[in-house]
Amino acid sequence: MKEVKVGLIGCGTVGTGVCRILIEKQHLISSRVGASVILKYVADLDTETDRGISFDDNIFIKDAFQVIGDPEIDIIIELIGGKTIAKELILKAIEKGKHVVTANKALLAEEGEEIFQAASEKGVSVAFEASAGGCIPIVKTIRESLIGNRIKSMTGILNGTCNYILTKIADEGLSFKDALAMAQKNGFAEADPTLDIEGGDTAHKISLLSTLSYGTRVDLNDVYIEGITGITPLDIEFADEFGYKIKLLAISKALEKSIEVRVHPAMISCDNPLASVHGSLNAVSVTGDATGEIVLYGYGAGMMPTASAVVSDIVDIARDLVSGAVNRLPSSFPLVSTSPVLPIDELITNYYFRFSAADKPGVLSKIAGILGAYGISVKSVHQKGRKSKGPVPIVMLTHIAREADVQKAISEIDSLDVIDDNTVIIRIESDQDEQE
Amino acid sequence: MKEVKVGLIGCGTVGTGVCRILIEKQHLISSRVGASVILKYVADLDTETDRGISFDDNIFIKDAFQVIGDPEIDIIIELIGGKTIAKELILKAIEKGKHVVTANKALLAEEGEEIFQAASEKGVSVAFEASAGGCIPIVKTIRESLIGNRIKSMTGILNGTCNYILTKIADEGLSFKDALAMAQKNGFAEADPTLDIEGGDTAHKISLLSTLSYGTRVDLNDVYIEGITGITPLDIEFADEFGYKIKLLAISKALEKSIEVRVHPAMISCDNPLASVHGSLNAVSVTGDATGEIVLYGYGAGMMPTASAVVSDIVDIARDLVSGAVNRLPSSFPLVSTSPVLPIDELITNYYFRFSAADKPGVLSKIAGILGAYGISVKSVHQKGRKSKGPVPIVMLTHIAREADVQKAISEIDSLDVIDDNTVIIRIESDQDEQE
Repeated sequence: MKEVKVGLIGCGTVGTGVCRILIEKQHLISSRVGASVILKYVADLDTETDRGISFDDNIFIKDAFQVIGDPEIDIIIELIGGKTIAKELILKAIEKGKHVVTANKALLAEEGEEIFQAASEKGVSVAFEASAGGCIPIVKTIRESLIGNRIKSMTGILNGTCNYILTKIADEGLSFKDALAMAQKNGFAEADPTLDIEGGDTAHKISLLSTLSYGTRVDLNDVYIEGITGITPLDIEFADEFGYKIKLLAISKALEKSIEVRVHPAMISCDNPLASVHGSLNAVSVTGDATGEIVLYGYGAGMMPTASAVVSDIVDIARDLVSGAVNRLPSSFPLVSTSPVLPIDELITNYYFRFSAADKPGVLSKIAGILGAYGISVKSVHQKGRKSKGPVPIVMLTHIAREADVQKAISEIDSLDVIDDNTVIIRIESDQDEQE
Repeated sequence: MKEVKVGLIGCGTVGTGVCRILIEKQHLISSRVGASVILKYVADLDTETDRGISFDDNIFIKDAFQVIGDPEIDIIIELIGGKTIAKELILKAIEKGKHVVTANKALLAEEGEEIFQAASEKGVSVAFEASAGGCIPIVKTIRESLIGNRIKSMTGILNGTCNYILTKIADEGLSFKDALAMAQKNGFAEADPTLDIEGGDTAHKISLLSTLSYGTRVDLNDVYIEGITGITPLDIEFADEFGYKIKLLAISKALEKSIEVRVHPAMISCDNPLASVHGSLNAVSVTGDATGEIVLYGYGAGMMPTASAVVSDIVDIARDLVSGAVNRLPSSFPLVSTSPVLPIDELITNYYFRFSAADKPGVLSKIAGILGAYGISVKSVHQKGRKSKGPVPIVMLTHIAREADVQKAISEIDSLDVIDDNTVIIRIESDQDEQE
């Protein structure tokens, strides 16, 4: 039986999961693939920690460059993450003619073009299914299943930490701070959660998927990114009354001359399949011009789900190798366009505003006056005798409006002396009929 | 640029969609694939009907065997359906060394083994993504994305006609008959809807997917199949009260020494992602041992969604051809086991019973007595002063019980003179914790 030899670099949580699958399911995989996928090396600085796996002798080493230097190795699995050493290792592996499997969304989102270009020149694959959505086969679906489609849009819940926190706020009425602490306690958030809660991780993923879907470069600096730190139980409660859920969404759309790529909390209708994605789960909705909407849903992180995606990439490449395929599948769709990312100021959508207003006559008229002056049309106003102390929440839902106008109007409103606190602005993504 | 030539046989709804994609998106596809996919023939007995596509001259022919006989053709797309001429054409195409793409679930579910065997001997592919779930990439997900998993179970809503009818009964309180008439009027059900509403179509799909997932033969005769003709608004209303939806489910599970493969209406919890699959949509939940549950959701039928799946198969094979891959992917997982299908009598699950009982004292005790004698433990009893005339509905939910016991007990209960009509039995699929 033919053999494909792989070397894994970075044996943390996901790396350990990959080792488990490759070692414990070696026979299952070889029976399905018609070739043996052999894990020749596992390189990690920490060779001491017990990973709960019985490795053969001499598999575990400290030096990643030894893996890359071994001419027997066909595929390098890079699971170190980050942008420094990982990039060097990947480029070096490509230079040596090795195929690469990685889950490194930050690196690919920011410097993917250089890496894909190098791989293309060398005729090797760079596979990255595990870099977005964990075990959800979103990369394969875009590149293969939707090959006959122009992709029109994508909406995703791509960060399990944020979705876990938002679910806790919604279900248990926790503050953001308490929900984050609970996420950290239960292993759903890192000690430094910045990249997750500020939306950066989600932005990496949607940038990468947008490049893939539309064949256009996405400069991460052009992507609007807003995290979930400002979400309160009160806004979630209001959303609920209107039939909405609040989710951290990654949104991308192909427009006529530009693309939208943005990450922010948004209200979506309870009927939307993404509304019922709870806890640390992920989901992606992709709309192709032939298929209409497809939704994929599953675990977006964790040892075994992510490892499963890595193994699917390894096997895809192994199948190419044993079947004699050369350059079977480009790592990315060709970059066919240079559509710019639509500046957030030009976004047109529906909005939810929550004003913290003094309970005085005339306040509503002042707010409405300013909104009107900026051409923002109010769909409904909600002002309830709530038991909260201090300022009274006034909530408004708008018809579609332009972001730049919204920002100017709200800034003007927030400087009124009857307004006690910054107005909460949450975009609404459900009223498709009105937006299109 | 390299060329791959394809011939399509059977230009009905889906065939027309495939032609549209291959012709209108020829440049898009060739830019993504690095090769031209050329539609050389379209064979159909009806060459007169305007398909709304501008075909090149000489593409449209009547004789399917001319397509198969042309040595230039690399891939045959069989979209005739049925089991007679389609089988002959597919086997002939394989014999001539051509790859085959088909959406023919009935043929593959019933005679797939012969076809896959022939393809394997000849070293050609038989691709069938469009045969289950329309544009949902379920075949690719099982064969490629979940390659490092043992698949533990699958639950699907795989028939859009049935789901449309059940949605109409639920949302509008229609009778089954009226909902079917509406489905027919709106193009969601055929003039002869038997194969859909009696569950046969769903059984074809889940048999095929089970063979693929577990690597075991599934004899369609061993699959328990129950359609939706007995579902009433009253049962849907009761289900609603308990937090359940009624769906026609395809269920398959890998047990220790057998597999479950069954098709029947079932109650599922409103929290289940499948519960929110409305109208003609399809969805499949697959649980792998590494990934946990993945749910895929999208249009399960219709011209363009199904055509999109057919095109993805064509392109997969085209990529093999132009990259020089030989036998890259087996058409099916190897048949590794001969696990028998668990007889429905041995099923253990939770049940919903609705008895049509005379409103007399002692009825409940008679029913409960018989259930008790068969070891069926009742979880709750619901008897409301409903406004229905005649017999009073008594509803019971059970703890897990054995199907054979249930059938015997209900048969005995139905012969009591206080019971006016056959008892409605609906299996409940949500109480996983209790079942496992």
